[in-house]
This record gives sequence, structure tokens and C-alpha cells, in this order.
Amino acid sequence: MNTVSPSSAPASAPGQAAPGQTTSGQVWAHVGQPFAPRSYDVVVLGAGRMGSAFAFYLRGLAPHLSLLLLEEGGLPNEDGATLLAPGVWTARGVPENRKAEADWTREQLETAFGDISFQARPLIELFAEDGPERTPAAEALAPHPDALAMVDVTALPFAHTDAGAATYRPGALALAAAQMAVKSGADLMLNARAHAVSAGEVVIERLSVTNTHQIVVHETHRLRAGTLVLALGADGPHAAEHDLGVHTTHARAYRQTPRLNVPSTDDTPTLRAAGLTLRPQNGGFTLIPAVHHRDPHGYVPTGGHLTGVPTGLRRETLEDLVALMDALPPLGTEALGLGRSISDIPGAWLALPGGRADGLPLHQTLTDGVHLLLGGPHADTLGLAVTYDLAAAVAGVEERPWENAPV
Amino acid sequence: MNTVSPSSAPASAPGQAAPGQTTSGQVWAHVGQPFAPRSYDVVVLGAGRMGSAFAFYLRGLAPHLSLLLLEEGGLPNEDGATLLAPGVWTARGVPENRKAEADWTREQLETAFGDISFQARPLIELFAEDGPERTPAAEALAPHPDALAMVDVTALPFAHTDAGAATYRPGALALAAAQMAVKSGADLMLNARAHAVSAGEVVIERLSVTNTHQIVVHETHRLRAGTLVLALGADGPHAAEHDLGVHTTHARAYRQTPRLNVPSTDDTPTLRAAGLTLRPQNGGFTLIPAVHHRDPHGYVPTGGHLTGVPTGLRRETLEDLVALMDALPPLGTEALGLGRSISDIPGAWLALPGGRADGLPLHQTLTDGVHLLLGGPHADTLGLAVTYDLAAAVAGVEERPWENAPV
Repeated sequence: MNTVSPSSAPASAPGQAAPGQTTSGQVWAHVGQPFAPRSYDVVVLGAGRMGSAFAFYLRGLAPHLSLLLLEEGGLPNEDGATLLAPGVWTARGVPENRKAEADWTREQLETAFGDISFQARPLIELFAEDGPERTPAAEALAPHPDALAMVDVTALPFAHTDAGAATYRPGALALAAAQMAVKSGADLMLNARAHAVSAGEVVIERLSVTNTHQIVVHETHRLRAGTLVLALGADGPHAAEHDLGVHTTHARAYRQTPRLNVPSTDDTPTLRAAGLTLRPQNGGFTLIPAVHHRDPHGYVPTGGHLTGVPTGLRRETLEDLVALMDALPPLGTEALGLGRSISDIPGAWLALPGGRADGLPLHQTLTDGVHLLLGGPHADTLGLAVTYDLAAAVAGVEERPWENAPV
Repeated sequence: MNTVSPSSAPASAPGQAAPGQTTSGQVWAHVGQPFAPRSYDVVVLGAGRMGSAFAFYLRGLAPHLSLLLLEEGGLPNEDGATLLAPGVWTARGVPENRKAEADWTREQLETAFGDISFQARPLIELFAEDGPERTPAAEALAPHPDALAMVDVTALPFAHTDAGAATYRPGALALAAAQMAVKSGADLMLNARAHAVSAGEVVIERLSVTNTHQIVVHETHRLRAGTLVLALGADGPHAAEHDLGVHTTHARAYRQTPRLNVPSTDDTPTLRAAGLTLRPQNGGFTLIPAVHHRDPHGYVPTGGHLTGVPTGLRRETLEDLVALMDALPPLGTEALGLGRSISDIPGAWLALPGGRADGLPLHQTLTDGVHLLLGGPHADTLGLAVTYDLAAAVAGVEERPWENAPV
């Protein structure tokens, strides 16, 4: 159970501002704040970065549409994928026809959300074989002695450098976007589990915590919504099917992000090898393992074993790291936090749009007036453009800012 | 708990044959038959088709090497992959440099193991798009009205026909190979769980069943083996790591083979579309779904849901079948046996050599004198050649029969 940060707007009565001024929306952070159900033009389920950014953009594009943003946890949800997302913007892997959206997303990350720890930081991808646009790894890493020291450049002698890459904090983005949405008139309810009952109707369960730390439903409301947006991350496709009977092709995978305690600074580049991303963070590295494919329905994340010793890392990730230990020697040391059980390693379910490990963020109409909004593995780079695109569609706005980019 | 079929050789004392004649080996089918441990030149763990064929070939190539074949269940093991293998020989998907082995395997299947229901039967693969060696599906299916009636040729208008394909029963192959191995002098113990303790040493637990149907260890033996062969199917890589500390790259996947109750005859071709194989069997069809990738460590097979109704088919397979329902209309009818829980649908763990869904059968030296023998998705087509290759290597024989094939 989380509460909104103190900087958020308190619950307040609507209509306090003078005519012409923007009125802040209401915030219900806990069940002590009474809620009188009303209809909304738009209800958004999920205040991760996708749902929050959608709410923010929609308030800007269509201030006449009333909007309620619902979140089961706090800002951001501790169990969601937003908080553990790498926060690495890179043009690598973006199809040519989506580059303008990626560039626009980068500009938004840099300028539109205040301090979200945005930082230009090259991404150096390392390879065993030569290929187009690759340079000797020793040369690419030479300006970064700390990174060079982590790599056996005889095992990974080639490098591709994305000099335009950047890092930021997706959790800070979600929080800022939600706060800005509220400031521009969106209502926000935290600790509220919501289900679409049908197109146009939502049931909200307001949650509270008992003395014995059990989460219970305090009260239930039913309200009408002209437009519904499911921004529930990896849970979205399940909700679409379970609540609305709409089957999709999307899937999910459980991704763990273990810690590598090798020193890093603001100048350390992000490294990548064989799909593993080493993201400098908090003076060390967060490892973002490759997602090779979906996890099957019914899979319960399970720790692995390394030469008989239990670890908190799942077996498949462990195998990938073991295969890289020669090329990236720190992975073979105690600097790698393996944990002892699954709960020792941060991890979250990641949506895989289209069931693909390389699926791009998307929105999709599930049924009249109900949209699914999915981030997934490339949400860092394209998520904001996709949320804007849906917001513009809901607002009835034709223009997309990235289409006006100078050639 | 299974017992050997009545046609198998009974437990008998060794050395009954006259000098120069081949002596049948001993068979211990149950714990009532006393076993006096002795050393063997070769001990094979697992009497599926790979282990049994290996034993058969090795007896032929090196009759001077004493051999013990151990099997945890019966012949074949009810929980193993052999019994549920499709039994479809096809040159499709076989790399050019392995074609000679595939052809040799086909010849062996046809001639070397007696009646294993071997039958020449074309494999007609259907496609939505045109491509090399493809013909109109309506033409390819015209000689087979029963198959034509199952396909919407507007959805799958193109076909590739492998006229040289064949079907057989892998379970019958395993049984025949084990019986022939025994007849040529191999010893065989059923209902015996075995572990490699180290290179050269095996612990055998002889299993029996209590009045309350619990499987218990009746007695334990330890014996020496010059050469050890792990032919444990999908359990082999785990045994290699757990018992011998040797990490491999192999993985496994749980494959279910549901029934499609549409009539078939001996003349019905095998069909394939989008990785799904429809194998005519017992007057209907057995469906062999595509294996897209490994299942994660810790995965417990789980049934799925179809529009809210529980099914015994796992979710991923269900999705694949739903996607094919328009192109193969019988999949959308009650002819498809969906079951209600996982136990309703036959399924087994399939080894994925090299962790790949298209991995070819292989053998691999784990440590001095210990070999891993893996079948996997292409065992129907290449398994016998790979078992022969290992048998020849153990026997010290240089020649491979497929290398003498006329050009």
C-alpha cells in the first residue's frame, strides 16, 4: 500500500479556480477521503508511465474532457514494470518509420517533465563479430576507463556506439506526469483496484490495509466512463480478456533486474552485450537481462541454482550471465547480486506487445470506447509518442507533433 | 509402474547358449527377480527410443562389451517423450549435410525393427504465401479428399509436399530395439531409477509399488560401469548437472498432443500448417503443436481457458490453435479434444538440444566415459543415426553406414 507523495495535490472540492483558470483535479490517496461517484468522459486504469502520460497529454489536448486516473498502488506502483524499467532511451532497434516518434519522445523526456534524472549517456553495444557501423571496442571504450575495465575486449572486440542515447528514471516520469495531469485538472485515485465491467462502465474497489497488513476492500463504487483506457502493463491483456472477453495476441515475461556492484559515475556509458544491458545507476550498475520470449501461462517465477547453490535469479537469466562471464569478468565476481531466493532480486512482469520479445509500444481499440495501452520492452524509447497518439485520437486531434519535425 | 510385455525374455541365468551362439541378456522386470550387482562395460540410463536403439546398435558393433540398459518405468516409459513422439519422418528441416543420416534413419525404420507400423505417407505443408517448391494447395490435396475437406484452401492456398515422408510408432521402435538388444546379449532392468554417482559409477534404486499405489525404493545397488550413457530425454541435462556437475546449454519444453476426432485412413497424408502437425493415427488425428521455445525452469504445466471455460490444453497451444481455426475449420469444432484439466491431454517434456526449439538430436561427452544422448524435436528423422554414431564411437568403429551411400 502506498500513499501519494506529499507534493501531490490534496483532495479538494472542484471548481475552486476562477473562470478561465485551470482547476487542479482531486486526489484520493486513501479511503479516509470520501468519494462521491460521478461520470467521467475518460477513465484511465493504471498510473504507470503509460497511463499517467496519457492523462497528462489528454488534459492538454482536450481540457473539456473530464478524466479520472486510477491506480491500484501508489505512484509509481511498487509491483509495476515502470519502477524497474531500464530508463534507457536509444535509437537502436527502432524501425526507420518510428524514428521521428523516438526523437520526439527523447525531446519530451528532456524537457517536458521536470527533473526525471534525464542525462545524455552513450550506449556502447559490444560484439564478438564485426558488422556495419562497428568500431574496435578498445577505441570505443577508451574515453571511459571505468567501462573499459569491465570488458575483455579480446572476447568482445567490436562496438557500436549510440552517442545520442540517454538515461532517465521511468518511475520519476510516471510520478511527474500524474502530478502534472492532476495540476491540469485530472482526478486521481490511488489504492483503488478497478475493473472494466463493460464498455462505458467501471467498478472501483478502494483498498485499505488492516492492522495485520492485509489488503482489504473498503468500499466499492460503480461509475460510467465515456472512454476507458486500460494502461495496466502486463496485466492489461488479461484484463481485456477477463473483463471484456476480448482476446489479444499479447503476452508477458518476468524480468529481473539484479545489481552489479561495480562503481559507476554520471559519465559512465550504458553497456550492452548479447542482449544484456548494464545500466549505470546509483553509483553501480543495474543489469537488464535479455527477454528472449514470453513466459507460459501459469509460470510462477522461481530462483535458480548455480553449482548447487540456490540463487534468487531465475535459471534462464543465470545461464545468460554465466555465458557472458568471460567477456564481462565482473559478472563472475561477488559484485553480482545473485540473491538466495526470488524475493531478493527486483523483478516485474513486462508486457510483450504482440507476444514478441521485441514488440513495440502500442494502443489498440478493444471494443467501442475501450483502448488498451501497452508499453513493453521499448517503452523507454517510444512510450510517450504512443501515449500521445492515443490521447490525440481520443481528443479528436489530427496533428502529431513528430510529423512536423524539420527534415 | 509398468511391467515388460509378455513377449520379452524372462529373467534367465547368463551363459545358457552354446559357445559361439549369441546369448540373450537377462531381464529384471520387477523386484521379485533377484539382482546380483556386477560391473558392466557400458550402462545406459533410459530405455526410450534413443537409449534402446543405442543398446541395440552397440551390441551389434561391439558384442564383447557387456551392457546394462536401465529404465525407470516400463517399455516404453508412460511418462517419457518417446510414447508421444509424432513418429513422422520427413526430410523437411534437415540441413543438407545431415540428409544422408536422415535417409539412413528412414531405411532403418523401414527394415531393421520389425513391425513398428512404418508407412510411407506424404507430408503436405500448407502456407498462406507462395514460396519455392510450393504448388497450389487445392492441387496438392486433390488426391486426398479427406484431407482437402479439412482445409480452407483460400486461407492456405499453397502447399509443399514431401512425398518421401513416412510415419511409424516411436513407442514400438523403443520396445523392439530394447527386445532386440536383449536378444543379442544386453541386460535390461525395468522399474529401476538410476543415477550416475561419478564417471564409472552408478547407483540403482529398484522400485516397487505398495498396496496404496505408492512407488517406493525396494533395494539399492551400486555398480561400476566403464562407459555411461545418459539417455534420459528431457531429464538428461538436469541429471548431467545434478549428478555430475556438468552444465549444458540444453533445455526442455512441455508439449501436449491433443486428439482431433476427424476420420483418417492409412492413405490420409500428414498435414502441417504454421508449425502444427496433424498426424493421422488410430482412425483420427493426433495434433503435434509447434514448440516455439523452451519453458522456464520451475514451470508447472497448466491448463488454459477458452472464453472462460477451463481446458486441459496449455494456453500457448490454445492460442496457436485458435489462430488456425479459420484455415483448418475442424479445429473450431467439438472434434478437437480440449479436455478440462491438464491431465486430460497427453503431454510430455521434450528435450531441446542446445536450448533450441529446432535443435537436432546429438550426443555429447560430459566427462571421461560419460555421454549424453538427446533426441528432441527431430528425433523421428535423425535419432537412429545419432544413436548409431555414439554406439560406433563407443565401439571404436570408424565407419558410418550413411557415408557409404551411393552418390
